[in-house]
Amino acid sequence: MPRIVQKHIPYNTILLSSMLLAIFGCVPLASASVAVPMDSTGPYRTVSHPENAPSGVDATVGPSEWTHAYANPAHNAAFPVSNNAPKWIKDGVSWSFPEARAWPLTSPPFGHKTYGMAEAAVTQTQFYGNALGPSVVKGVVYAESDDMFAYAVNAKTGKLIWRASPVGNNLMGNPLVVGNTVYLSAGSVGFNFANVIRYAHSPSASARGLNVSFNGIYALNRENGKLLWYFPTPGETMATPAYDNHLLFIADGAGNAFGINATTGKQLWKTHVGGMDNMSSVTAYDHNIYFAMAIKPYLYCLNESNGHVVWKGTIPGASNTGIGDVSPAAADGVVVLDATTTPQANKKARFGNVIRAFDAKTGAVLWTRSMGSGAKIPAFKGGVPMIHDNIVYVGNPVASTYQAYELKTGKLLWTWHVPTKVAAGAGRAAPTYYHGLLYITTGQYIFVVNPATGKELHQHHIGGQFGIESPVIVGGTVYLTSSWDWIMAMPLKTVNPNS
Amino acid sequence: MPRIVQKHIPYNTILLSSMLLAIFGCVPLASASVAVPMDSTGPYRTVSHPENAPSGVDATVGPSEWTHAYANPAHNAAFPVSNNAPKWIKDGVSWSFPEARAWPLTSPPFGHKTYGMAEAAVTQTQFYGNALGPSVVKGVVYAESDDMFAYAVNAKTGKLIWRASPVGNNLMGNPLVVGNTVYLSAGSVGFNFANVIRYAHSPSASARGLNVSFNGIYALNRENGKLLWYFPTPGETMATPAYDNHLLFIADGAGNAFGINATTGKQLWKTHVGGMDNMSSVTAYDHNIYFAMAIKPYLYCLNESNGHVVWKGTIPGASNTGIGDVSPAAADGVVVLDATTTPQANKKARFGNVIRAFDAKTGAVLWTRSMGSGAKIPAFKGGVPMIHDNIVYVGNPVASTYQAYELKTGKLLWTWHVPTKVAAGAGRAAPTYYHGLLYITTGQYIFVVNPATGKELHQHHIGGQFGIESPVIVGGTVYLTSSWDWIMAMPLKTVNPNS
Repeated sequence: MPRIVQKHIPYNTILLSSMLLAIFGCVPLASASVAVPMDSTGPYRTVSHPENAPSGVDATVGPSEWTHAYANPAHNAAFPVSNNAPKWIKDGVSWSFPEARAWPLTSPPFGHKTYGMAEAAVTQTQFYGNALGPSVVKGVVYAESDDMFAYAVNAKTGKLIWRASPVGNNLMGNPLVVGNTVYLSAGSVGFNFANVIRYAHSPSASARGLNVSFNGIYALNRENGKLLWYFPTPGETMATPAYDNHLLFIADGAGNAFGINATTGKQLWKTHVGGMDNMSSVTAYDHNIYFAMAIKPYLYCLNESNGHVVWKGTIPGASNTGIGDVSPAAADGVVVLDATTTPQANKKARFGNVIRAFDAKTGAVLWTRSMGSGAKIPAFKGGVPMIHDNIVYVGNPVASTYQAYELKTGKLLWTWHVPTKVAAGAGRAAPTYYHGLLYITTGQYIFVVNPATGKELHQHHIGGQFGIESPVIVGGTVYLTSSWDWIMAMPLKTVNPNS
Repeated sequence: MPRIVQKHIPYNTILLSSMLLAIFGCVPLASASVAVPMDSTGPYRTVSHPENAPSGVDATVGPSEWTHAYANPAHNAAFPVSNNAPKWIKDGVSWSFPEARAWPLTSPPFGHKTYGMAEAAVTQTQFYGNALGPSVVKGVVYAESDDMFAYAVNAKTGKLIWRASPVGNNLMGNPLVVGNTVYLSAGSVGFNFANVIRYAHSPSASARGLNVSFNGIYALNRENGKLLWYFPTPGETMATPAYDNHLLFIADGAGNAFGINATTGKQLWKTHVGGMDNMSSVTAYDHNIYFAMAIKPYLYCLNESNGHVVWKGTIPGASNTGIGDVSPAAADGVVVLDATTTPQANKKARFGNVIRAFDAKTGAVLWTRSMGSGAKIPAFKGGVPMIHDNIVYVGNPVASTYQAYELKTGKLLWTWHVPTKVAAGAGRAAPTYYHGLLYITTGQYIFVVNPATGKELHQHHIGGQFGIESPVIVGGTVYLTSSWDWIMAMPLKTVNPNS
């Protein structure tokens, strides 16, 4: 199933070189590498600026690998640095990198007069810029964008190291970085008409992304963005895979899960569980993997080594897409998932959000809580949970709140109401816990909240609109991406003057 | 409703210039124009090479404007040249221009092992390269591509004059060129989940492209590709608008038709008729416009000046999307449309294709013919009709045939069976009639067929796969686009050694 692209290159190089020689009177520059066959002088060529890569101690800043969406199974993208780390990362750096379709952060979303503010903002978060936050590994910030490019940017300077667009599709993941490889996940939110018909006849038989575009995993060389191989999937792979023990675990929009060799892209196992994974990124935890599917609404636990289903669970009343949107968080033997639920007959169209904790090994339900209700929301249906020190921190977009629950008991510790109005509902992104504080991106702001009390300590305006892009904190710097197509770095003390 | 982009530019220039100065140590080149706000040094910037534009007599080759998909209401994209035209256009030129994601014409489509050949080829025609053929005006070839770029290429040399990507969306139209303006239509084939649900509950309430991405008409400066204004539409605008008498007429995926001022983009009228326009491009003919909608399956005739519905007609048994895929052809007071039909209960899943002729003024049905049956086909459901000298030439993808009918009587003159097998069905594109011969692009070939007898005279292999991209013939040159993302020119005598 994986296709090694290397073998295309000689043919391609010959074909395009001779053609471009004829057309432009020049041959492609040696530095303009060819990924999948395309015009190697064109706009989608891989651009590489090795001179912008970090060196020396700067190339050691941050974690040495990035194996999950939101950094790890607990979804806490926070990385303290040691005292002898470079001064710039301890003090914090400030830069903004405009991605290919960078939209002014102070502007309302495209077409808001035509589509309305809530829908226009949601469309922009789904189709325009970054859907998830960045990855920071060894002094480099990696990001995927709906603009069809992936980027590697120097974490200190904000300068471009490479950009690549191996496929004409939205890249909605959080790049995984292991060894010398960056893994991208490609898939569009859209359905084609055949799937619309299929859904109308039998919802559970439909699949997202099937024959809509070019789905799958794209493995790039970490240093220059060159495509190493790709692994096509039938449905979209909007969600981020997980890496563990030399394997990559993928869930797609056609109800499939795959275990593949992370070095070669070769398939080890495939399990069709049905339903569709939307943005429920895979969590690899204690020799099992966890992901959620919509339509046939289940949270699945599969064995890492053979793909066998260990257990499945669900969330009662989960809305059509809700349970397939949210990435399960895992820590201390517990897996947590939530989803927006549809109203009961007697509730007058009030939608809810329900969170449930499962025993990671057995799937036994440990506790279930109603998180509060509100009006129907568009798009992503739930809040991405984060676990830190036996407490779950999680948002609820139907009520525009964040809450804290005890991991083992489900005891509600506090509810914080997001103070700024967000047309599509606030509260989707996972909070980041760092040095005793919670950092939360929602609407146009990054908030600082006291994790013990749920009291807001500070708010810092960014603009654009955050969907499920969480802040990544390394030392004294916050790294962010935006649906308005930007990668940003700012000192922690800018976000929180009391830090 | 239209937004003049000019007003963004000062802000944007300041914002990005200062930012880029900080990041790259340089400011954008004056020649790198800014369209909608984005990184003006990035891959989607508008690139302009005025030195490649034609001059002198070369800038007079071909028609002086392009007002319709397939050139005109009759859909015959053929342009003889006078004896004193330049030798190169009379003898024919040969070049291939690789668009941004140019895929080797000799390669099978992306992911054919994962999706199967029929679906992979159809996906590539819908999402990868050019969906319609090029426009040739005054020595320049214009093309829109699913790769999100529009191109202007010198018709003689094949050199790039400009490329532009004003929006992150598929461009599936045939660029209109009038005066100093090029009009692009933006819209994706996809549906979002809210529309999938809507379709399941009430098919006629659903809309294609709604909140999937950034739909509408983009007006560019013909000389340099700079964005002049855009007109957003709620549903996709995959179909090409029509120009007549200083107005532009648009039909979208949300059941709307618009008449707008072609110079300013200001809306004159809007009529919601319901259903969804897929690839049914608008035809402006004798003070009325014609387009077809799917789901609520009607061919509409609207008054150009006020948008009032003059009449509507249908095709009995049209499949879900069939009647919204095909562009009506008009000539000699007759409008012709066809669509794939779904099987009758007793026909054992044999699909048909039905063609019907209407009186253009009154909508009276002049004749209806069953074109032949076959297996179900994916994607575009019908053949684009072309009218020449009182004869309709039209393909039928369920039977992989082309036929000729008398325009006034519906008398079948001949049926030609496409000899080469096409996994998704041959016979979608409109034939082009030139100097007593028919030129037909289908599958991997361009065929030459005798229009009097329906006998094949020659076949010429191109590769890739043609969907509904028709050949454009100017003097001795055939201009083609490909779903594999190429623009090509070749001498007519290459395609037909007997010409």
